[in-house]
Amino acid sequence: MAFKYLSNIPLDEARSQFLSVLKAEGLTSETEIIKTVDANHRVAATAVYAHISAPHYNSCAMDGIALNASLTFGATDTRPVTLQQDQFHWVNTGDPLPTKCDAVVMVEDVIEGEGGEIQLFIAAVPWQHIRQIGEDIAQGDMIFPSYTEITPAIQGAMLAAGALELEVIKKPVVAVIPSGNELVFPQEKPGEGDIIEFNSTIIKGMLEDWGCEPVVYPIVRDEPGLVIEALRKAATECDFVLLNAGSSAGTKDFSVGAVAEIGEVILHGVAIRPGKPVVLGIAKRGPKVIPLVGLPGYPVSAILVMEELVRPAINLLLKKSGEEKALTEATVSRRLTSSLKYLEFIRARIGNVNGKLVAVPLNRGAGVVSSIVKADGIIEVPQNAEGFEAGEKVPVSLVRKMENINRTLIITGSHDPLIDELIDLMKIKWPDSQVASSHVGSLGGLMALKRGESHLGGTHLMDEETGEYNRSYVKRYFPDGGVTLISAVFRSQGLIIARDNPLGVESIADLTRAEYVNRQKGSGTRILLDYMLEKNGLEPNKIKGYEREEITHTAVAAAVASGTADAGMGILAAAKIYDLGFIPLIWEQYDLLVGEKTLEHPEFIHLLEVLKSAEFAQRLEKLGGYQLNNPGEVIL
Amino acid sequence: MAFKYLSNIPLDEARSQFLSVLKAEGLTSETEIIKTVDANHRVAATAVYAHISAPHYNSCAMDGIALNASLTFGATDTRPVTLQQDQFHWVNTGDPLPTKCDAVVMVEDVIEGEGGEIQLFIAAVPWQHIRQIGEDIAQGDMIFPSYTEITPAIQGAMLAAGALELEVIKKPVVAVIPSGNELVFPQEKPGEGDIIEFNSTIIKGMLEDWGCEPVVYPIVRDEPGLVIEALRKAATECDFVLLNAGSSAGTKDFSVGAVAEIGEVILHGVAIRPGKPVVLGIAKRGPKVIPLVGLPGYPVSAILVMEELVRPAINLLLKKSGEEKALTEATVSRRLTSSLKYLEFIRARIGNVNGKLVAVPLNRGAGVVSSIVKADGIIEVPQNAEGFEAGEKVPVSLVRKMENINRTLIITGSHDPLIDELIDLMKIKWPDSQVASSHVGSLGGLMALKRGESHLGGTHLMDEETGEYNRSYVKRYFPDGGVTLISAVFRSQGLIIARDNPLGVESIADLTRAEYVNRQKGSGTRILLDYMLEKNGLEPNKIKGYEREEITHTAVAAAVASGTADAGMGILAAAKIYDLGFIPLIWEQYDLLVGEKTLEHPEFIHLLEVLKSAEFAQRLEKLGGYQLNNPGEVIL
Repeated sequence: MAFKYLSNIPLDEARSQFLSVLKAEGLTSETEIIKTVDANHRVAATAVYAHISAPHYNSCAMDGIALNASLTFGATDTRPVTLQQDQFHWVNTGDPLPTKCDAVVMVEDVIEGEGGEIQLFIAAVPWQHIRQIGEDIAQGDMIFPSYTEITPAIQGAMLAAGALELEVIKKPVVAVIPSGNELVFPQEKPGEGDIIEFNSTIIKGMLEDWGCEPVVYPIVRDEPGLVIEALRKAATECDFVLLNAGSSAGTKDFSVGAVAEIGEVILHGVAIRPGKPVVLGIAKRGPKVIPLVGLPGYPVSAILVMEELVRPAINLLLKKSGEEKALTEATVSRRLTSSLKYLEFIRARIGNVNGKLVAVPLNRGAGVVSSIVKADGIIEVPQNAEGFEAGEKVPVSLVRKMENINRTLIITGSHDPLIDELIDLMKIKWPDSQVASSHVGSLGGLMALKRGESHLGGTHLMDEETGEYNRSYVKRYFPDGGVTLISAVFRSQGLIIARDNPLGVESIADLTRAEYVNRQKGSGTRILLDYMLEKNGLEPNKIKGYEREEITHTAVAAAVASGTADAGMGILAAAKIYDLGFIPLIWEQYDLLVGEKTLEHPEFIHLLEVLKSAEFAQRLEKLGGYQLNNPGEVIL
Repeated sequence: MAFKYLSNIPLDEARSQFLSVLKAEGLTSETEIIKTVDANHRVAATAVYAHISAPHYNSCAMDGIALNASLTFGATDTRPVTLQQDQFHWVNTGDPLPTKCDAVVMVEDVIEGEGGEIQLFIAAVPWQHIRQIGEDIAQGDMIFPSYTEITPAIQGAMLAAGALELEVIKKPVVAVIPSGNELVFPQEKPGEGDIIEFNSTIIKGMLEDWGCEPVVYPIVRDEPGLVIEALRKAATECDFVLLNAGSSAGTKDFSVGAVAEIGEVILHGVAIRPGKPVVLGIAKRGPKVIPLVGLPGYPVSAILVMEELVRPAINLLLKKSGEEKALTEATVSRRLTSSLKYLEFIRARIGNVNGKLVAVPLNRGAGVVSSIVKADGIIEVPQNAEGFEAGEKVPVSLVRKMENINRTLIITGSHDPLIDELIDLMKIKWPDSQVASSHVGSLGGLMALKRGESHLGGTHLMDEETGEYNRSYVKRYFPDGGVTLISAVFRSQGLIIARDNPLGVESIADLTRAEYVNRQKGSGTRILLDYMLEKNGLEPNKIKGYEREEITHTAVAAAVASGTADAGMGILAAAKIYDLGFIPLIWEQYDLLVGEKTLEHPEFIHLLEVLKSAEFAQRLEKLGGYQLNNPGEVIL
């Protein structure tokens, strides 16, 4: 294969190199003539001029009478002018101005007599209350210049000006070629071991939203010949080709070779993370230039490359002005390390906590689609920066509107499905609720609150000496107060074990015989395990898998269900979802720790309301393993 | 008819009254189950949970080898560990983790030996470079709560989590009933006297953009029975009904009566301008609530009522959180009077001139669709305000992005079609050009520049004493400099007269025999006329129609072409568009007066480039009546 090593060109340079080559080679957009009524969101290929004037006649702008203004000259409060029926015309708004008339008098100012005559107490000014011909748009006026994006109002203006058709840029037909051996489309029934191909759904949706006509090709197996064949076919049929996955330089990566085979590679590898392995190339079909892009396989990488490199090329075709990316500053909640080699994009939750805009980085794995669903913004760590310390200001581009971010309630703390259920109940009752939650463990939540980076968090921290929950931690970490502890539930914690429990795990002591899956440091569940190990006189290094960390109860249950672990600690609700065995160990107290100012936050008031609701109790019942504990009561 | 007088309820009150009645009467949204791949932009009716984990197996996150980490313990730079072929597996990114393995080592860190054995110089940490099962989304996790708007990324997350279908809110079917006697649809061929109905195209596009399924009904003639019949039919077939035009209280306004006939009127008349005559009502179909809205007929009014009253009700059905309207402050360029009775919405061009955000109000006629095409924002004059003085800060909601507004070049001055042609040439060369122009006449442009409200303007002001153009005005109005006068063209000014010139108008003196149409005060053309009248010893009151004002050359030509005026002063290009007679009077000098700081404005540099281009010369040639006058040369 021709290109074994990836280059590491800065993003801006890569983008302008790609666009320059496309322009230099003569990338052109095709146009078509369509009806104005069908043109919403399309881009005009030429300036459009008015065919007729709007209004196209002098039109009465009021209900009343039309007349020649000179008949009324001299009329005053004390000396009204009287007009006979043949001296004026009754008119409605929108009626054409009758001939010989040059003014309209409002009906309110007309006093009717018995015999059809009228009296006027104010003189009319010539051309009053008349919408003059061409007043809005005159025939021959340019309604809008080339490359204007059509909106419903513009459609209206065109129709008013008699422009019933227009020439628009054709929607670029963009091929999306998914590749990979185990992939099946979501429409097909996935068999054992099949992986649902979902990138092409994401890419297709993005392309449609950008004004393209995407065509998803059949999934190509990982063979160089097949990839080349698919690419060649797409390049004959479409205006732009995207090949998804296989863009890196591994033994199963055939994109760059295929692009080199049917066209030319412009560059391979860009200094961004995620998204580094990208192939930018072009092919020719006669004089026509076809951009070819090999997208990385991980969805987060693919989306980033779509936004940063594919979209500018699409905009070039569509003659659209790219939206300027507006960077805002936010305080980053934890240390972010980054390589000097890359411009790094890290998705984050963004919230306004008591006036401070806070960015909480999400898992930056390139495969983590949930990070895209949850992200409110993207932190950009510049290529020449080593990262940021917690508390530093970082540049972020917002994904959601600032107005919504500003009123979002930020929940940061221990993971429990009940948090998601509360959020759902809020949405059902108040559809415009804005709540964001992240799982960082009980201690992490406590620290976030202390640093002023969250409004509240779930917490279940047992005092190892007293066995009491939360109180002693709150007193230790918030000696000066400023927080309120609010009661929520008791929940059943225990060991989640394999369905048939082949190892016969019955207690903490049995964990020495099993493959364990742990929770992350700082989580209440990890603290509980350590407490129980100590009580049983066990050293952590006696537990195989102690260093394997998951950050939610459900992820622990998933590990056990998959057979890669025999046991993990978690709540009954998680075991139930996976139909796993469960050895209850303790009813633990799960409370909400709330910042002082949060108590007046409108979204928190809503949260308290659903916390106390019958619907919430029903949801807990369904999850299993919960007891209500005077929800909403202030403990401390 | 039941409701003869319109109420004048404040907008916020009207909106909440409308929504409360809809809620109290039990407005409900229907739902349907669709495929995830078809769900982009739809609104989820319920929370969606993961059916499978993502990833659903422990997956290798790097190309390299998979092994049991314990085999590598103790490996260092000086004491590498050697492993035989049966102790590890070669893997690619995305491969399932082979059994008994708990770590992946990157290919870069693996030194291959001759016989297939490998050496490692760093110990592996258990679970390194592995994407653990459920790491992204674990089975049973809530992917998103109810009423989430689906995006391509969310589709991806759902598919990754095995959620192939979901329940969404059904698109509300919204009836749009146009009414009016002379109306024909744009699809039909308009006959003599027909008016193209374009409101329904605007309304349909807005509804589609908001997530509805609009159904445009046939045009109803202005008869109460027909309107009632159409309304009743739509209320049986749709979820929401909009009746366009006839919403006021005139003799041909049947909306309120029709709503009262088939349902109930909630209110008639809202304290806004434009948009006051609106009917809000409901009907019932069994238990189902059908909102009925009578929209005003003028397009600007109809659009405003759609945004301010219809959209919130649609959002209620679609469970969408309405976008918060963000008001910005801008300096208003001229005095704005307003009635204390209404909250007034005035469309405006908004630009950033040397750091100051300036709002230039557009023609506020409710029929002026061009104002919607041109508007960058909407000034909101509160109901309790009498208006604003020029130079005051006014609240505006922006229609275009602030980033684009900030880089927009504001051209304010004399009208000439060449300005539009320049803008078009800029767009063709640089599709993301941002230029806004308004016609306020030469003097108006000069004053706007002086007040710091524009970047430049076209100007043709003749000194009545010297006959010289522009210089003396510039010196008088800008005694301290700060502006640059740049040469553009000579253009042929003269009398635009009827095609066959029945009155035999040959000169200024003949205007006393004709019906004249004038340009507005402060325009260079008006000044030219006054100069010529004086030279000919004529008083303005000798010219019939002297007080009839149009603000562009084309509007003057349109008035002459329509036969409502016999003559007007204007440029040859305008006469040519309408195929009218033209009596040339003078070759006048049309220059650009440019603010000092504008000279470095990137968009102005582009404008200068096209001003000097061959393409511009060709366009002038086509317009007719121009001579290039060293375009781009600095005069002063």
